[in-house]
Amino acid sequence: MDDNAVPEVVVEEGAQLGVTYDDHTSPPEIGPGSIIRAGSIVYDDVTAGRWFTTGHHALIREETELGDEVLVGTQAVIDGATTVGDAVSMQTSVYVPQNTTIGSNVFLGPNATLLNDPYPVRQDADLIGPTIEDGVSIGANATVLPGVTVGEGAFVAAGAVVTDDVPPRTLAAGVPAATRDLPSELAGENDV
Amino acid sequence: MDDNAVPEVVVEEGAQLGVTYDDHTSPPEIGPGSIIRAGSIVYDDVTAGRWFTTGHHALIREETELGDEVLVGTQAVIDGATTVGDAVSMQTSVYVPQNTTIGSNVFLGPNATLLNDPYPVRQDADLIGPTIEDGVSIGANATVLPGVTVGEGAFVAAGAVVTDDVPPRTLAAGVPAATRDLPSELAGENDV
Amino acid sequence: MDDNAVPEVVVEEGAQLGVTYDDHTSPPEIGPGSIIRAGSIVYDDVTAGRWFTTGHHALIREETELGDEVLVGTQAVIDGATTVGDAVSMQTSVYVPQNTTIGSNVFLGPNATLLNDPYPVRQDADLIGPTIEDGVSIGANATVLPGVTVGEGAFVAAGAVVTDDVPPRTLAAGVPAATRDLPSELAGENDV
Repeated sequence: MDDNAVPEVVVEEGAQLGVTYDDHTSPPEIGPGSIIRAGSIVYDDVTAGRWFTTGHHALIREETELGDEVLVGTQAVIDGATTVGDAVSMQTSVYVPQNTTIGSNVFLGPNATLLNDPYPVRQDADLIGPTIEDGVSIGANATVLPGVTVGEGAFVAAGAVVTDDVPPRTLAAGVPAATRDLPSELAGENDV
Repeated sequence: MDDNAVPEVVVEEGAQLGVTYDDHTSPPEIGPGSIIRAGSIVYDDVTAGRWFTTGHHALIREETELGDEVLVGTQAVIDGATTVGDAVSMQTSVYVPQNTTIGSNVFLGPNATLLNDPYPVRQDADLIGPTIEDGVSIGANATVLPGVTVGEGAFVAAGAVVTDDVPPRTLAAGVPAATRDLPSELAGENDV
Repeated sequence: MDDNAVPEVVVEEGAQLGVTYDDHTSPPEIGPGSIIRAGSIVYDDVTAGRWFTTGHHALIREETELGDEVLVGTQAVIDGATTVGDAVSMQTSVYVPQNTTIGSNVFLGPNATLLNDPYPVRQDADLIGPTIEDGVSIGANATVLPGVTVGEGAFVAAGAVVTDDVPPRTLAAGVPAATRDLPSELAGENDV
């Protein structure tokens, strides 16, 4: 067997791959070619496909499933119990709460913040994060409220606060966000 | 004495409890049942009550007083000289500047940002952070300007920019935030 | 020679000064009087002048040039290939992308986010960050889009989303930001 056939997993000094959180947890399973950078922490019961990459000081909590070629950027946090597809890029300081579903070919810009608690300290509620479908781009500093679905190929502008579902292939912008047709420059060749 | 009567304080490997910042500082005093997670840093002259919990990579600077059952989430920062009540939850990446006052039963959503400098690099000014009264909920990615008081039981929506005082039991939303009556679903049983 | 003439560089335990990223990198060059606080990471091929200071868990990537008296706050990230002048203060969790130009006497408030990718996952584009001229103040949680120039002495309000150039000595506020004359209290003595 060629030594190059299965690229190694690199865990930099100062990174922590595998954090036990109760008596029945299993070590993370990370695909070949992956790199966990210094300062990042990955809990037990996380799985990731090939070519998984983190920035620095990222945190990935338990029961998270990541596809192939996922980037979790510097200081990005996935709070657990979340499913992510392939070829997803989460930029610096993205926040993904528990019980979120993210498709493939998704981009989350710096500081994009997804939520799962509609009535914090007011009512008990099921904590359900957004559903981000394939090919979606969420702009920097955008906020997506609990339970919202952002449809395939949609584009959420920087700084938008998304309170309602976003139809596929539309642009959502503003506070609160309004949707309109996707401008031609945002319906690019990489759209799904 | 029952060994279980006084639960221990857990300081995970890679956390730092006690940072000296001049020649006259005193180690932090942390109540029983507390846990400081890996990567978090607590300066000298911080006090916290029982069941204090941090996420990872949190920072708490000097002269901060925290009540019982306070959570300072992953990457949340309290920049010092701040008082916080009981049963307060600061989610991921919350920022609290110096000279801030936070009551009890307060929720600060992910990336909520409080400020204390009204005229950065323009004028010298007293640096006074907001006053967040009991039972307030501050939404994710919201920004609260210096010196503002958010009244008891008020709710600040996600992404709001709060430039003026928010009356008790109102909802503040938008950029800049406007206030209106609290909708019934936000005047829940946990309201103070 | 007086021992005090050249103040030392302090690299706290748990900070990392110098990260190799390929086979041809050079260690960072940091001026006298600087301090790199615990948890921060500085890559190779970074230069900084005198009295450079970081908070905790900051990240500065390669090919960044910083002038004298620069503060990169706690969790602030400079993603590389960026030039920064003198007397610049980047507060907690500021994000600066690659290919950004920042002048002197600039203030970036907590969570201020600069961008360099106009069409993420839609089109290939040159990744050019904003140009922030001398004496500019960017408010907390503000977002500045790719390629935008914020003119000398301008003030961007907290939470603003800046989509177009901001003329010198104006105030930009709102989502998207509109510009107007600088109010007198923001045209202070420290203005450039």
